[in-house]
Amino acid sequence: MYHQLSKQSVIVQKYGGTSVESVEKIHKIAQRIARQYQSGMKKIVVVVSAMGKETNRLVGLTEALNDPIDAASYDMVVSAGEQVSAGLMAAALKQDNIPAKPFLAHQLAICTDSTHGSAQIKSINISKISECWQQGIIPVVAGFQGIDTLGELTTLGRGGSDTTAATLAAFLNADLCEINTDVEGVYSADPNRVKGARLLKVLDYQVAREMAILGSRVLHPRCVEIGAKYNIPIVVRDTFSQEQRDYTLVHSGVKQACKNNVQVTSLSVDKNIARVVLAGLTSKQMAELFDQFVKVGVNVDVIVHERVEEEERTQVSFSVSMLDQLKVLTILERTKLQPGYSVFNFVIEYELAKVSVIGSGLLAQSAITAQLLQTLEQADIEVYMLSSSEVKISCLVLKEEATIACQLLHDDLIKGRSNKRVIRAVAS
Amino acid sequence: MYHQLSKQSVIVQKYGGTSVESVEKIHKIAQRIARQYQSGMKKIVVVVSAMGKETNRLVGLTEALNDPIDAASYDMVVSAGEQVSAGLMAAALKQDNIPAKPFLAHQLAICTDSTHGSAQIKSINISKISECWQQGIIPVVAGFQGIDTLGELTTLGRGGSDTTAATLAAFLNADLCEINTDVEGVYSADPNRVKGARLLKVLDYQVAREMAILGSRVLHPRCVEIGAKYNIPIVVRDTFSQEQRDYTLVHSGVKQACKNNVQVTSLSVDKNIARVVLAGLTSKQMAELFDQFVKVGVNVDVIVHERVEEEERTQVSFSVSMLDQLKVLTILERTKLQPGYSVFNFVIEYELAKVSVIGSGLLAQSAITAQLLQTLEQADIEVYMLSSSEVKISCLVLKEEATIACQLLHDDLIKGRSNKRVIRAVAS
Repeated sequence: MYHQLSKQSVIVQKYGGTSVESVEKIHKIAQRIARQYQSGMKKIVVVVSAMGKETNRLVGLTEALNDPIDAASYDMVVSAGEQVSAGLMAAALKQDNIPAKPFLAHQLAICTDSTHGSAQIKSINISKISECWQQGIIPVVAGFQGIDTLGELTTLGRGGSDTTAATLAAFLNADLCEINTDVEGVYSADPNRVKGARLLKVLDYQVAREMAILGSRVLHPRCVEIGAKYNIPIVVRDTFSQEQRDYTLVHSGVKQACKNNVQVTSLSVDKNIARVVLAGLTSKQMAELFDQFVKVGVNVDVIVHERVEEEERTQVSFSVSMLDQLKVLTILERTKLQPGYSVFNFVIEYELAKVSVIGSGLLAQSAITAQLLQTLEQADIEVYMLSSSEVKISCLVLKEEATIACQLLHDDLIKGRSNKRVIRAVAS
Repeated sequence: MYHQLSKQSVIVQKYGGTSVESVEKIHKIAQRIARQYQSGMKKIVVVVSAMGKETNRLVGLTEALNDPIDAASYDMVVSAGEQVSAGLMAAALKQDNIPAKPFLAHQLAICTDSTHGSAQIKSINISKISECWQQGIIPVVAGFQGIDTLGELTTLGRGGSDTTAATLAAFLNADLCEINTDVEGVYSADPNRVKGARLLKVLDYQVAREMAILGSRVLHPRCVEIGAKYNIPIVVRDTFSQEQRDYTLVHSGVKQACKNNVQVTSLSVDKNIARVVLAGLTSKQMAELFDQFVKVGVNVDVIVHERVEEEERTQVSFSVSMLDQLKVLTILERTKLQPGYSVFNFVIEYELAKVSVIGSGLLAQSAITAQLLQTLEQADIEVYMLSSSEVKISCLVLKEEATIACQLLHDDLIKGRSNKRVIRAVAS
């Protein structure tokens, strides 16, 4: 990627919380930017997160109040951390003789809708960025924050600074959006848990997005979605690694290379899963129930659907995050008491985990699903549910068996084997 | 004061750092405001400081960078604390069912000049406050911050939130500006050091301002100046004391009461003083030297001036804060080396303290000065310098004798005696 950049390239650089957790680290980052600036790369925008655990501290303050805090006040409190980082980063750059200017959301007119806590950016006035560049100034933008049409502060939700960076990159038609973080890039599985997990050098947007949704904490789904929509290459790299060493590049060039090919890219595990089994509902009742889940923000995943013909009723199982299971239980218990639900029944099972295989062209190749089931069966690991799509196959297993399941699947589907060999093994 | 207020009264309430140092305390304050609101007082504006030592923590971050930080970045970093307090206070009010809205400087167009770090407020758009009140909403304003004409963040310097409150009160033509703090009000001397120090129930603006300048940490000079200029009554009170109990009222009504009367109100002590004695300078050279002091921000105080006739040269002594003495020394040493300064000489004396008697009509009554000198002489305390004005008499004594000097002067000039008796004692 980096060899394609010129002095005229527009680069948005986002630095995450651990990267700016101390003044020393901020200074180190300033030195990196100064080197780039002095080498002639002057069209840089810096986006910063809050220092280390600062946002958590601020969230803690809001939680210490008696009741849940209102969304507008919440946004005002939790967005303060990025302001501090922006001021410090601009100051550090100036100390290295690089002209720099800190910007808050309202100063760049980072306009969002009014969904406090998870607002979406609608527009950014990039003329101020251009003005900075014309004067040789590096703009340093406080991430995570925006303003709505009333001029009220909003925040962009989890991974908000990544979203700020990607959106700025989109509006600037940037050549690169760098996500500088505390790991070298995106891995094929969690390297702390899975032996042989390896750094993924390139990813296409769709796979990267799926990995982000499934909880890879490195990239955030919206950042990837914006990158995909505006075709902005995204690099995930270690803030303090040597220049142009290891990193993950997310761009649109990958897909072409493995067109019509099955490509298993990575594995992810979520150990906080419950399974809900519902029986004795009509289709209409089922639809009403799921509508209620949506309304309280429950994310229903891995749905398996079975029609019991003679009763004209449906049996459905689905997985939910343990964070949501109490909401689900409340709704189910309330439903059961209503007239017309006499034959309705439900079971919730706990201590489950969701292991997901992520890649491209997975639906077209049922051999991968077969291989997955075979691998787990050989290890005597029961699969409670399974669902697959073009980009992922997710299965529910016992929580205590998740790590070994992940290791086995990584060994079989990713590590050191070409996809062709995997497929052959299944076919034989 | 409080019995004069009606439901239509406009009140600006400022809460200081120790008052909002925890979420619990913020909640307590919200409950106070809620009681007032429910009793019908709805034209309230709340101004908040940063929580506890938060601004110090932020200043510490700026100081941790290698070199002094640029002023604009500094302001962006150190103003973040008030934003957090404003959000939390608005949230706490809402939890008590009081409609509230947090405001940052740019949202109220608190416009200042561009003197980062000690900007002066030029204007505030109070229409947003009126709009809030029309809807029954309490505005909660982040103190200490402003924006300049370029839209850049500025801060108002030491005591900045008091300045925000007083200026808002001025623009709103408020009936009262409350400074809610961690002491019951302004005392006749530091109650931790001087026995018999008492709460001053009323003060006129001039005396209050002089006390603020001389280092009473409760009120800040600019806040008092704004109050005086726009004739806004200021109340200093303990945030968590019972309503309408003890407090200090600063207003213009006091002066009338003691017109033509000597009124010794309080004593203050500054233990970080050096005395500088200059000899062998022409008037022109002296003026140039003082001009240099001004340029580097040295505050020269208590000047005593002696003309040595035969030489057409002047001897001058003055006191400076120990914080400034190094700057003074540097300038004096550099000056001594210049041509035309061969007979110039200087001495700097350390370990001194400045004890000041503050009151009204002091110049008219030299008896107070006489009493002061007599009291100190009887206790064998040498007075190194003395200067007096309408509102204060300051004298330099040895640092080690400052506390006893203060106690003796408090006993003689303030405690339990009418001014008349003091004067008689001197006259006899």
